[in-house]
Amino acid sequence: MPSKKIPVAVLGATGSVGQRFIQLLESHPWFEVAEVVASERSVGRPYREAADWRLDAFVPERVAELVVKDYSDQIESPLAFSALPGEVAEEIEQRLARDGHAVLSNTSTHRMGADIPLMIPEVNPDHARAIEAQKKNRGWSGFIVTNPNCSAIHMVLTLKPLQDAFGLEQVVVTTLQAVSGAGYPGVPSLDMIDNVVPFISSEEEKMEEETQKLLGKWNDGFELDPVVVSATCTRVPVRDGHTEAVSVKLGQAATPADVAEVFRSFQGRPQILELPSAPKRPIVVRDEPNRPQPNLDRNSENGMASVVGRLRECPIFGVKYVLLGHNTSRGAAGASILNAELFKVEGLLPV
Amino acid sequence: MPSKKIPVAVLGATGSVGQRFIQLLESHPWFEVAEVVASERSVGRPYREAADWRLDAFVPERVAELVVKDYSDQIESPLAFSALPGEVAEEIEQRLARDGHAVLSNTSTHRMGADIPLMIPEVNPDHARAIEAQKKNRGWSGFIVTNPNCSAIHMVLTLKPLQDAFGLEQVVVTTLQAVSGAGYPGVPSLDMIDNVVPFISSEEEKMEEETQKLLGKWNDGFELDPVVVSATCTRVPVRDGHTEAVSVKLGQAATPADVAEVFRSFQGRPQILELPSAPKRPIVVRDEPNRPQPNLDRNSENGMASVVGRLRECPIFGVKYVLLGHNTSRGAAGASILNAELFKVEGLLPV
Amino acid sequence: MPSKKIPVAVLGATGSVGQRFIQLLESHPWFEVAEVVASERSVGRPYREAADWRLDAFVPERVAELVVKDYSDQIESPLAFSALPGEVAEEIEQRLARDGHAVLSNTSTHRMGADIPLMIPEVNPDHARAIEAQKKNRGWSGFIVTNPNCSAIHMVLTLKPLQDAFGLEQVVVTTLQAVSGAGYPGVPSLDMIDNVVPFISSEEEKMEEETQKLLGKWNDGFELDPVVVSATCTRVPVRDGHTEAVSVKLGQAATPADVAEVFRSFQGRPQILELPSAPKRPIVVRDEPNRPQPNLDRNSENGMASVVGRLRECPIFGVKYVLLGHNTSRGAAGASILNAELFKVEGLLPV
Amino acid sequence: MPSKKIPVAVLGATGSVGQRFIQLLESHPWFEVAEVVASERSVGRPYREAADWRLDAFVPERVAELVVKDYSDQIESPLAFSALPGEVAEEIEQRLARDGHAVLSNTSTHRMGADIPLMIPEVNPDHARAIEAQKKNRGWSGFIVTNPNCSAIHMVLTLKPLQDAFGLEQVVVTTLQAVSGAGYPGVPSLDMIDNVVPFISSEEEKMEEETQKLLGKWNDGFELDPVVVSATCTRVPVRDGHTEAVSVKLGQAATPADVAEVFRSFQGRPQILELPSAPKRPIVVRDEPNRPQPNLDRNSENGMASVVGRLRECPIFGVKYVLLGHNTSRGAAGASILNAELFKVEGLLPV
Repeated sequence: MPSKKIPVAVLGATGSVGQRFIQLLESHPWFEVAEVVASERSVGRPYREAADWRLDAFVPERVAELVVKDYSDQIESPLAFSALPGEVAEEIEQRLARDGHAVLSNTSTHRMGADIPLMIPEVNPDHARAIEAQKKNRGWSGFIVTNPNCSAIHMVLTLKPLQDAFGLEQVVVTTLQAVSGAGYPGVPSLDMIDNVVPFISSEEEKMEEETQKLLGKWNDGFELDPVVVSATCTRVPVRDGHTEAVSVKLGQAATPADVAEVFRSFQGRPQILELPSAPKRPIVVRDEPNRPQPNLDRNSENGMASVVGRLRECPIFGVKYVLLGHNTSRGAAGASILNAELFKVEGLLPV
Repeated sequence: MPSKKIPVAVLGATGSVGQRFIQLLESHPWFEVAEVVASERSVGRPYREAADWRLDAFVPERVAELVVKDYSDQIESPLAFSALPGEVAEEIEQRLARDGHAVLSNTSTHRMGADIPLMIPEVNPDHARAIEAQKKNRGWSGFIVTNPNCSAIHMVLTLKPLQDAFGLEQVVVTTLQAVSGAGYPGVPSLDMIDNVVPFISSEEEKMEEETQKLLGKWNDGFELDPVVVSATCTRVPVRDGHTEAVSVKLGQAATPADVAEVFRSFQGRPQILELPSAPKRPIVVRDEPNRPQPNLDRNSENGMASVVGRLRECPIFGVKYVLLGHNTSRGAAGASILNAELFKVEGLLPV
Repeated sequence: MPSKKIPVAVLGATGSVGQRFIQLLESHPWFEVAEVVASERSVGRPYREAADWRLDAFVPERVAELVVKDYSDQIESPLAFSALPGEVAEEIEQRLARDGHAVLSNTSTHRMGADIPLMIPEVNPDHARAIEAQKKNRGWSGFIVTNPNCSAIHMVLTLKPLQDAFGLEQVVVTTLQAVSGAGYPGVPSLDMIDNVVPFISSEEEKMEEETQKLLGKWNDGFELDPVVVSATCTRVPVRDGHTEAVSVKLGQAATPADVAEVFRSFQGRPQILELPSAPKRPIVVRDEPNRPQPNLDRNSENGMASVVGRLRECPIFGVKYVLLGHNTSRGAAGASILNAELFKVEGLLPV
Repeated sequence: MPSKKIPVAVLGATGSVGQRFIQLLESHPWFEVAEVVASERSVGRPYREAADWRLDAFVPERVAELVVKDYSDQIESPLAFSALPGEVAEEIEQRLARDGHAVLSNTSTHRMGADIPLMIPEVNPDHARAIEAQKKNRGWSGFIVTNPNCSAIHMVLTLKPLQDAFGLEQVVVTTLQAVSGAGYPGVPSLDMIDNVVPFISSEEEKMEEETQKLLGKWNDGFELDPVVVSATCTRVPVRDGHTEAVSVKLGQAATPADVAEVFRSFQGRPQILELPSAPKRPIVVRDEPNRPQPNLDRNSENGMASVVGRLRECPIFGVKYVLLGHNTSRGAAGASILNAELFKVEGLLPV
């Protein structure tokens, strides 16, 4: 008896985020990896050989034997998860969308597009409505939906309930980002042993811009939220899990206890719909003075939660806290998958 | 022929900062380590054996044979550098000051005292005048002078020229601090391999309070500067060198180029007096996009400079930058030594 | 309805190995943690507060509320897993054994005892017979069984099938050990950032002696195997997973392919009995040129396997390979649990 | 007045070893960097810009302004230090030698050549005689001299005095190598955070083969020494400094104390000739139980010594120890420079 699951393609399947897609989809109740697509070097080889699998000891069994397809090959699956490198994403993702595929993309290329939803299901599920305009504007039978940058997504998950409860004006954030965010080989070890690199190309711009789109509105066009974000992004010797020190100026006064309560009670569409990949608690609040820590907290709620700690008064902005989120689970592959789950339940998938 | 150098005692000589004192004083033109003082466990043993020397392969030859004295022993040297643990510093430092010694202390105990100078020679050399009041108030023939916390000192070195040139209102800072700041054994490796700890006890308070004293005035009493600092302090897997992401609201508008110019031209009393440990450039400005980095930049100007990079506009505060400073050189032992050099030239030492 | 599981006590429950016991027992089919016992500092507090839980984000729910008992308190559970510090283990373990408890100990104290089994169920299950002598000699109603040092156990797991197939004469081994082996706080981060420490106290002696007992025979007394082991033990900046470079002189010639075949087909009593914690493959052989690696391979078979790679000719000894094993799973807590499972199936537990 | 120093070219000047050449030559009494040569990407730019300088904060001033030459450009300097990548070294080094240059090469390409000296000045200075044959055989007016692999050189420095004093039969060695040995970008940080990689391509073969040539004789041809070496090479998260665990079977019995005495008294030609880069003690022996350590000991004797510790009996081979050596100082650039110094004093340079 054939599987009733929806077949999906993973684009850029051999890279770091591609591998995470395959890991997170391994026993997914709705989706099943049917095609793995990667660059020329890998094409025609079984995934087991083509991927230098680095998430744990062994490649998931079922995917291991799939033969890697070329970017130019016909994709059969109605759904495509994209972890494509930026330089090829534009052409490929647009072609697939034109041809009727739902493209759920983790790549930055289309994120700020005027008719492309940039979504976090807990934050702006109604932005899905933009795909109508997108299909119409572009004459596509499919569509592209994107999820945010790995640092932006966790920060915005915590900003959304603050915006709702108190209003949101200004955010100063400094990140301490894990090396897996740069893929493999990515950051050289000579840059990370006994060192910090206080710069990640384009990362600060992404955090500043994507936040405004994510917290904005869709009214036959995206209205950016006026919140102002000032970001400093650094790389630290951590494998997985971005840490962010955040100070927030709210629209109205709130104590750390108020904020903790708002974080703890936050629930979005994925929680209401009980989506398979939805964390029960999208924001986990820790009371210990020295948490969150990447090594201890990054897998909270299967890597799909943002973990907040050190919630306290900021003498300048009102409130500040430290947050941590897994950058390749909720911060990348998991974000795309959660978007796909929302789209399925909302009846927006072409299946 | 006996040395003409001023004999000095190092208190807490076997610890991390104590070792750095001994290393930095190894070929000092004015001072010579004559006494090493440490806790009971070390007393009576040659320094070579008592200290688990961790700065490089070998203990400096001359100090290696000094026999470690007890805290209760008579100190002969007119000058004492203190790297004492907080819990014993109060009694010992006060006793020595009472008995006529100049105590140059890196310990936090007396930093915020109402008649105790907290000094950075480039920033507030005139605070030295407080020792007159101190001696009079307390009936001491000696005195205590302190230097700031290792994170505060580098930040304030960069804030001072901004205050002078543009005025200074608010500072948001996130630190990424090295493990040597916690001494030895200090931070467990299980906390630092593949991890960040987003908390350092009392560190944020020190940065917030000490900055106001350092940038304030002495008018027969310390007048705190009204600058408001909001700090988040984290520990990262780096041996030496604190990195700090700083956003500054100035009193009047200034471009990053203006600020760079002010940093580059900054000179203080130590530079004018050409003190032996004074960095030629107290602030080194780097133009590369990915600097400063601890491993590359921490020893700039023999570890006595603050290295600034990533100078750019902050959409909220006006200007932001990343700074790096060696936390046990200029951030601790070197700071005390530079204070001592200033006091010597100013004729304030009891010799 | 009360649980039918056998209640167990964990001694030294708040330490690194104690935590691993609790984690591995969380959903064990036969055993259930009923008592947690630790040093004075923790006594009377719920485990959640007493343990600085460091294995992941949260303490297992059921154990979290157990109140920590004192070492001198009455232990009710028939089974006690011991992760006691060496200095207290002797008195406490002997008292419990005397009083009728089965003590499964990971502590080194009793390992080399003349009537104390030192066991790996795949290697020397028949050494369990020593407990008869032990009980008789000592007049105990219970008994003590130990498992080996975390480096020895993985090496011996790979030596056993070689001994059986080819005979075994000499072994030269160099270890690269993880920091979790030293507990928490354990190894200072200043020793492990950009560094290696080529010494671990008593570790080499343990590897050399325990191997002879493990591979020896019980004939109303332990006959040590004459194999000669020469070990060099080092500490490297890895959280979990000991890597070991092993060269072996066999009794008769064998090619790397022969050895690989012997490793791959190795099955012991735990596999035959299908014990709950038994790895399906006690030895996992990897063919890739650059494996095993701690970060990728340490959790193979739930941390209960020894992973072997780089199997090749040694120009001096005949064959050499690199092995990797999880040092707190199979290397400590998991080893005790597997011993307990064997004892239960063999009818040797006092329940 | 022009410099009287011998102008030298550095080939492969922008890489890791190239940078170390430039750093070590910065204030060399005899040699002066006059030409920097690198791959196409760098050609025509000032060295300051072409090199991503990573040894400390700033490029040495004098070299910073040199314009990078192409491999095909005319080299003026009589002496060329080569840190060329293997794939281009053969053609370039041979061309320069043919044209009359003395090529001092750190590249592996020519090391095992039948008429190419592979030299450590303390070990086999007489191998320099091979250049006569080399020039004659090949019709070159210049010549090529090589230095060993970074792991082999330190091991052989310690084996030579053992060979002389006791005879040498077998060596088992496991290395824990630093990442700088792989250049920049080199080893990815995802391979080195919380990890060990137990494989370095061709490294074990080099240690096994080069040792035999280094300890062999030149009799109008190289006679390899029959010593058998069995090596396992691993990569660990250390920036600089290779650690090696060595077990040695000597020709005649010797106690650890005998060996320590032989190590401590070892002096070679460089020490006798007082060559500028020669370490006073080519082998530094440490008595502490936990030394040598890379972070503390790698710069001993300016990175030109091999540091030995943990000297003790080996139950199989007789004696074992741990050694540490700086892999890019004495292990690469410093080795070539010391060879050049020897050749100059011996009158073998074409100047």
